[in-house]
Amino acid sequence: MTLKDSRRAHVVGLGLIGCSVALALTKNGWRVSGEDLESDILTKAQAAGLVEGSFDDECELVIIATPAGSVIEVAQKFLSASLSSSLIVTDVAGVKSTIAEAIVDARFIPGHPMAGSERRGLEGAREDLFVGCTWVLTPRESTTPESYQALHRTLRDLGAHVTALAAPDHDRLVALASHVPHLIAGALMNEAAEVAEHDAVLLQLAAGGFRDMTRVAAGDPHIWPDVLLENRVAVIDTLRDLEDRLNSVRKLLEDGLRDSLVEVLSRASQARRELPGRALDNAQLARLRVDVSDQPGVLATVTQTASEMLVNIFDIEIAHDIEGASGTLLLAVDRDRIDDFELSLTQQGFRVGRE
Amino acid sequence: MTLKDSRRAHVVGLGLIGCSVALALTKNGWRVSGEDLESDILTKAQAAGLVEGSFDDECELVIIATPAGSVIEVAQKFLSASLSSSLIVTDVAGVKSTIAEAIVDARFIPGHPMAGSERRGLEGAREDLFVGCTWVLTPRESTTPESYQALHRTLRDLGAHVTALAAPDHDRLVALASHVPHLIAGALMNEAAEVAEHDAVLLQLAAGGFRDMTRVAAGDPHIWPDVLLENRVAVIDTLRDLEDRLNSVRKLLEDGLRDSLVEVLSRASQARRELPGRALDNAQLARLRVDVSDQPGVLATVTQTASEMLVNIFDIEIAHDIEGASGTLLLAVDRDRIDDFELSLTQQGFRVGRE
Repeated sequence: MTLKDSRRAHVVGLGLIGCSVALALTKNGWRVSGEDLESDILTKAQAAGLVEGSFDDECELVIIATPAGSVIEVAQKFLSASLSSSLIVTDVAGVKSTIAEAIVDARFIPGHPMAGSERRGLEGAREDLFVGCTWVLTPRESTTPESYQALHRTLRDLGAHVTALAAPDHDRLVALASHVPHLIAGALMNEAAEVAEHDAVLLQLAAGGFRDMTRVAAGDPHIWPDVLLENRVAVIDTLRDLEDRLNSVRKLLEDGLRDSLVEVLSRASQARRELPGRALDNAQLARLRVDVSDQPGVLATVTQTASEMLVNIFDIEIAHDIEGASGTLLLAVDRDRIDDFELSLTQQGFRVGRE
Repeated sequence: MTLKDSRRAHVVGLGLIGCSVALALTKNGWRVSGEDLESDILTKAQAAGLVEGSFDDECELVIIATPAGSVIEVAQKFLSASLSSSLIVTDVAGVKSTIAEAIVDARFIPGHPMAGSERRGLEGAREDLFVGCTWVLTPRESTTPESYQALHRTLRDLGAHVTALAAPDHDRLVALASHVPHLIAGALMNEAAEVAEHDAVLLQLAAGGFRDMTRVAAGDPHIWPDVLLENRVAVIDTLRDLEDRLNSVRKLLEDGLRDSLVEVLSRASQARRELPGRALDNAQLARLRVDVSDQPGVLATVTQTASEMLVNIFDIEIAHDIEGASGTLLLAVDRDRIDDFELSLTQQGFRVGRE
């Protein structure tokens, strides 16, 4: 494949994620153009050979990696600029509901790679940043199997585990998986910094555990406020729950209730030990056929069902009837989980069969 | 050096830390005996060649690696059993004040290696567990330079950075560096486990940051309650401070105060980026002579001053006058920090000179 034949992607916002996407796509043979509000950043990225050229009708994919606050405006701009039905626009913002509701165009599929680094910008970018990461997509009723399949494959080829969630579920769950942990890490680090003003040796006592727990606090402080404010209902709820938990464990200490303390810590220890590692890449795959009429929402329902059941969809294909009025999804999923998944789809009224 | 000539150490309690100490000392040429309340565990450790033989008068060093609650009793037993003035008894418990106060014998030097693992027992033990870790000693007034020097060197030879702190300072600071982080990790993990009962996909969203922040929660739930209860005054205080911080950041979200949020997160980000890495092993060393009369407390004062100033003491030697009534400490410290350290010791009335 010559460069001329390469598929074309356009990255908007050349921070850590945008640059890493550009590197990873380039490695996979894409030709990547890019832009950034700050001309210095764009110039640097061009000089580094990270991006070249600009957006045009040949681009199949636009990845919006700007701060969350500007995603809607940027997405609308590109969706208006191109009439191509095969264009896919996605974003990487950490909160999805508002964005998913604001943009009705079916060519927009909101996304969120659960990857990051305490490093920033071009300097921190890595072509393998997404290997093994969970990349959430929030397909809507209007999302077509074709566009979902294309985006799923592109992201899977970057090494990501693609998972579908409804946007509100995503937002509620990342409050606990990511946003509140970030605030806690920040609180712990600020407390330590204040104590260290008088007791510098504290920082020498800050061993592996403390370093682990505060690592995410080093993240870019200018990305986070928008994310936290955008998702503040869920973040506030989750913070309250955490405060309640800390409050009750403090009461156990005050009352010297050793047995209850053992119970609380044992539960946590067991849960942490059972926390699944990264999804297996070499899972035995089995193929499932799902007959779907070409009606809105089917793709979203099927992929979200898989996510809820922790069934990994490794690949999606679409087989259309000749008339094009109905079709079949071919899903490659973990062999171990296929029975449960098949049952659940059947119970929801889908006609399902094995390959 | 034949095994017969090897220095002898005795490890009491063959859990993760005890077994790792045994492995590390053995690697350094020590002959290590051991014991454990559970005969199965001792048998396994003997079968693995980790320990052999039992405590006798030839042992120079006893490391008590039992749960915190039994350290005092075990230490008294060994101190009573031997009249040797060169015997050193130390422990590894995570809380030091009570232990340090209860045992008056000068041959006991309380200690706390800031190392750990989510793994447990013999299976989790590693001979390099202490490489680069901070190993706190809490020397008392009665601690002699000779015994401190011997223990310091032994621990340094295991790869540890030895730091001296007064026991109450240790306890106050580890509440923040270790104990409260453990409780927070547990709370976060328990919250996630409960939410995951209905939303299993949460665990798939638990990316690097969440995994980092909950890692310590996997630790042995039977070690922690004693540590937390023993140090509960400091832990409760620190928990309260953290709850206050979370409470106020929640209020910032509720009130939508973006600028204040940026300020809080920026402070944390900067502090985390400035958190020192592991102390440099290849620091340029300089030598300082401190004239000390052989009076109680000098060793503790000098070493604790170094810790407070983040001056790493890489080595200690003692040069005695012929009469033995006074002497000189020879300290090898980071060249960069020697001026400040020298000044501080001078201000405290010590006569200090360079080598």
